[in-house]
Amino acid sequence: MEKKVNMPVNLKAPKNDELYPISGIQLGTAESEIRYKSQKDLLVISIDIGAAVSGIFTKNKFMAPPVIVAKKHLNIGRNKRALIVNTGSANAGTGEDGIKNARVVCEMVANELSINAEDVLPFSTGVIMTDLPVDKIGKGIPMAIKNLKIDNWLNAAESIMTTDTVAKAASTRIMIEGEKVYVTGISKGSGMIEPNMATMLGFIGTNANITQGMLDEVIVEIADNTFNCITVDGDTSTNDSFIIIATKQSNHQLIDSKNENYYLLKEALLETAKILAQSIIRDGEGATKFISINVHDGKNREECLSVGKSIANSSLVKTAFFASDPNLGRILAAIGNSPIELLDINLIDVFLNQVQFAKSGSLDENYKESMGVKEMENEEITLDVYLRRGECSCTVWTTDLSYDYIKINAEYRS
Amino acid sequence: MEKKVNMPVNLKAPKNDELYPISGIQLGTAESEIRYKSQKDLLVISIDIGAAVSGIFTKNKFMAPPVIVAKKHLNIGRNKRALIVNTGSANAGTGEDGIKNARVVCEMVANELSINAEDVLPFSTGVIMTDLPVDKIGKGIPMAIKNLKIDNWLNAAESIMTTDTVAKAASTRIMIEGEKVYVTGISKGSGMIEPNMATMLGFIGTNANITQGMLDEVIVEIADNTFNCITVDGDTSTNDSFIIIATKQSNHQLIDSKNENYYLLKEALLETAKILAQSIIRDGEGATKFISINVHDGKNREECLSVGKSIANSSLVKTAFFASDPNLGRILAAIGNSPIELLDINLIDVFLNQVQFAKSGSLDENYKESMGVKEMENEEITLDVYLRRGECSCTVWTTDLSYDYIKINAEYRS
Repeated sequence: MEKKVNMPVNLKAPKNDELYPISGIQLGTAESEIRYKSQKDLLVISIDIGAAVSGIFTKNKFMAPPVIVAKKHLNIGRNKRALIVNTGSANAGTGEDGIKNARVVCEMVANELSINAEDVLPFSTGVIMTDLPVDKIGKGIPMAIKNLKIDNWLNAAESIMTTDTVAKAASTRIMIEGEKVYVTGISKGSGMIEPNMATMLGFIGTNANITQGMLDEVIVEIADNTFNCITVDGDTSTNDSFIIIATKQSNHQLIDSKNENYYLLKEALLETAKILAQSIIRDGEGATKFISINVHDGKNREECLSVGKSIANSSLVKTAFFASDPNLGRILAAIGNSPIELLDINLIDVFLNQVQFAKSGSLDENYKESMGVKEMENEEITLDVYLRRGECSCTVWTTDLSYDYIKINAEYRS
Repeated sequence: MEKKVNMPVNLKAPKNDELYPISGIQLGTAESEIRYKSQKDLLVISIDIGAAVSGIFTKNKFMAPPVIVAKKHLNIGRNKRALIVNTGSANAGTGEDGIKNARVVCEMVANELSINAEDVLPFSTGVIMTDLPVDKIGKGIPMAIKNLKIDNWLNAAESIMTTDTVAKAASTRIMIEGEKVYVTGISKGSGMIEPNMATMLGFIGTNANITQGMLDEVIVEIADNTFNCITVDGDTSTNDSFIIIATKQSNHQLIDSKNENYYLLKEALLETAKILAQSIIRDGEGATKFISINVHDGKNREECLSVGKSIANSSLVKTAFFASDPNLGRILAAIGNSPIELLDINLIDVFLNQVQFAKSGSLDENYKESMGVKEMENEEITLDVYLRRGECSCTVWTTDLSYDYIKINAEYRS
């Protein structure tokens, strides 16, 4: 099976002029030789005074020191002034020294920008259980800060890539009360966890004028419907982080409740975050297919998500997708393995793209293997699963499991 | 697909004369051409009147029709008289027709042996979502019954193989009150689920004299410490079944409580079932390593099991084992992903064979990469994880994740 050596599935980096600058946010990168020479590996994001910043972090109990420090700094007050991101070392599994190092890096940024260290949030991605190379980062920070500019999002996206093959960025514009509101974001990650070059990171900026409280609410909704709906291998990194910065520099009225403007902004954030999250899947390790799994008619969102992830994380389902083999029984078995109480399998219908193959829990009598083979050959595949027990739904995005996944994960460090 | 590049890890089939016959149990096989010519694909196990039979079945909600029928027949009364096992078709995802077909097969066996159909338990493994070839099985049953004999366990083990590369059987003898008590069993399976040629099956016979009630209790303990502790890919088949038959023909006193003899018998059953369960892992799809994960000092067995399975089912951990790459952060991250409440990672110690690499949740300062590399090169690897929060423990057995796993599961049907 001669496959492309890890080509993303229908994914191209945007051009920099397709990404709207966000007034109040400047980005600068540097080559600080953390792991490789002549490679951007450091990003500083500088934020004007007065912005609101919200964050969502990994649920892995081995939370890495930068995550611990970022969460702590966010709790001290939300008027953050800078983000510092390095690749090459995840500063994870590094204990007290790791926390000290994450703080030192914040101090370095704070000194250069004449702000408080508590107003800096640190992010790291790379090899885990190795010490953060504080000296190299210390040399890189002034260079990155020297390069700070407003129209620098693509460069920023490139600087946080690890095993990513494509820089991931997205941008949109909406009007609120006749004012232009922009949303621009970047992401990285090609496995949900991949501690060699770890982590899913997402950073979104907007000039929207929204209270800290409302931003804290919207970020949960956005994460739940985008970054929390993707899975490559079912693992969760020690360093996963998702941040939204609202600079409040647009002139529309302050969004301080779930009013019409809140929902307008939410849609724009959702659209951007969805592209960023899907881009991670499209560039998933060894991915040859992009698979959307819609689970319908569940009692609640959680059970829909559990069915979707049970399918998405089944190695047997994923290898069948890789082989374009309509081994649809594996999908039913994966549904049967989801931890839902009292699931009546005799109600379940499943469609592969538009083709129904399971009807009332058994093979649909009109289904023929040739129909499944044809659909499986597509690069973009949609599964629709109907549980027929409620009115909730959700979507999970995932990839197949290929030789290249093994290659990337088995051979990376050698 | 042309297997077997796939070599099992330190596993050889026993010789038939190493397997003790069990008085009261006869086994016969046949070639009924269900899927291939000149291949044993049918097994009948005939049981003398008066035996106790207990079963444990898959928890997958898409329970296959033979499992539904076997459970129902067991509920009608436990003095079962025969088991019928076919490979080539799992009779899963086949709905009402599948249930009818499983019943028809029981009737065929019952007619040949002049017993009741309700006293026959059916088992199927093979391609799922295809109809059971009842006609072929009907022709095979008289042949299998003609071959029934008491010293036929290895032949039986061979007849239930699917992607298995080695026949799996084990046997032991103990003395109870000066009487010889034998335990002999067979198993099959090389992925926990693998719906092409599905399923983990285990059948154990003993001449021990034990009540139905005590057999029902001991089978749960045996399964929980053997077959429920193995995982290849985290999936659970629609057809998994484990049966213990006690013919009661030994002359020791009836075991009707958890007395000394109960524990003697339990140990013998445990020893046999452990070999059968570990054999499945050693012959796991694409396996190049046999990995034992001991989780110590948990609050209860369940949380130890959840940590063990979180490690065992992590694709990233498994690929690192395949590559002999001591990427030990992946193991810590997998522990952090287990669903334990309030796990204090700062207490956790982890050993790779005898080498400690994690101390109090961080990299042990005495650990060097070269030490990990050396241990990772072994075919047999033991991880010891200390949670330091209780007094319970458990062991999980698993394999690595290799190119051959993908090959076997992606290409089988083509």
